[in-house]
Amino acid sequence: MAKRTLGVLLFPGFELLDVFGPLEAFGIRSAKEHFDTVLVAETVGAVESSQGPKAVAEADLGDRRRLDLILVPGGFGTRKEVANERLLQWIVRRAGDAERVLSVCTGAALLARAGVLDGRRATTNKFAFQWVVEQGPGVEWEREARWVEDGKFVTSSGVSAGIDMALAVIGGLTSVELAEQIAVLMEYEWHRDARWDPFAKVHGLV
Amino acid sequence: MAKRTLGVLLFPGFELLDVFGPLEAFGIRSAKEHFDTVLVAETVGAVESSQGPKAVAEADLGDRRRLDLILVPGGFGTRKEVANERLLQWIVRRAGDAERVLSVCTGAALLARAGVLDGRRATTNKFAFQWVVEQGPGVEWEREARWVEDGKFVTSSGVSAGIDMALAVIGGLTSVELAEQIAVLMEYEWHRDARWDPFAKVHGLV
Repeated sequence: MAKRTLGVLLFPGFELLDVFGPLEAFGIRSAKEHFDTVLVAETVGAVESSQGPKAVAEADLGDRRRLDLILVPGGFGTRKEVANERLLQWIVRRAGDAERVLSVCTGAALLARAGVLDGRRATTNKFAFQWVVEQGPGVEWEREARWVEDGKFVTSSGVSAGIDMALAVIGGLTSVELAEQIAVLMEYEWHRDARWDPFAKVHGLV
Repeated sequence: MAKRTLGVLLFPGFELLDVFGPLEAFGIRSAKEHFDTVLVAETVGAVESSQGPKAVAEADLGDRRRLDLILVPGGFGTRKEVANERLLQWIVRRAGDAERVLSVCTGAALLARAGVLDGRRATTNKFAFQWVVEQGPGVEWEREARWVEDGKFVTSSGVSAGIDMALAVIGGLTSVELAEQIAVLMEYEWHRDARWDPFAKVHGLV
């Protein structure tokens, strides 16, 4: 089977683990024969995270390589980017062409503002749940879910939930055995049940 | 209490989650009043990870800022760096001055080759356990542990174990309440028991 390319969107104030949790899984040695990854941002070069450390975008929004999967992270930067028309248009265009569209945490707010989640079920970070809901009144937001899959769209809860979702997506696109092998290499206790979500209760959503 | 600075060592082929799991925890908003973080490498600028994506080092090995904590990640790059005398000397010098010295995964091989773990208990990644043990014959390697604390040295198992260790270190240096709050913000199921280690069995070590 041909390799798929995952494009991960960066913007100032992205959440570190939203990006690098999934990229650890998609980029680990045994995943490399199935996936390439590329960091995409408005301009090529260093992009500062919400935590401070910077990652390097190697493609800009005009880059024309095929992206089979896209991933939109959250982070405090989303508060500003929900009004960034260039970014939202990139999401609309790339989501249309992609086989899977993933978000972690408040990245779902960007998908919602781009309009691509309208009429679909989705979830997001539980700490900032209300703010995200306001960005997408046409979305069926699920208050209690580790991640939600609806068609090509797979939206996950806060930060570390992106790792569980990434493993589930890898399992679906390749094999559950490969996803299990990756989780073991990461020494990660994979939550395979998309309904597992103790944090909805902690944050008073259920 | 004064803020502490965490220096994280980068080298070509570092493991993404070894670095950005702990940095997510140390750099999240509620941790920022307690910790600053800086990425350190042989030269300032972009450093390519084992997975492919690049992070930006903002200080080189000659940088003189005080580092209260240092973290040494693993990744396939360690296979080469165990013979990098400049890097090992930086570890010796910085470990001597630091309040806590942390490693994730095969980062323990670099600490071992620098000699700072001699006579101490330590652990490491379970997949590459035998190779790491060979780097430090004078170290008391523990085959089954999520992380091991011995004096100022805190060494963790593979990849995602660094997140559990980071939360434990934050808890010890500040308060358990803050560590719990960070875990909830990350929507991360924190393994608080340093002895929890199902991966030792998976990899046939016990």
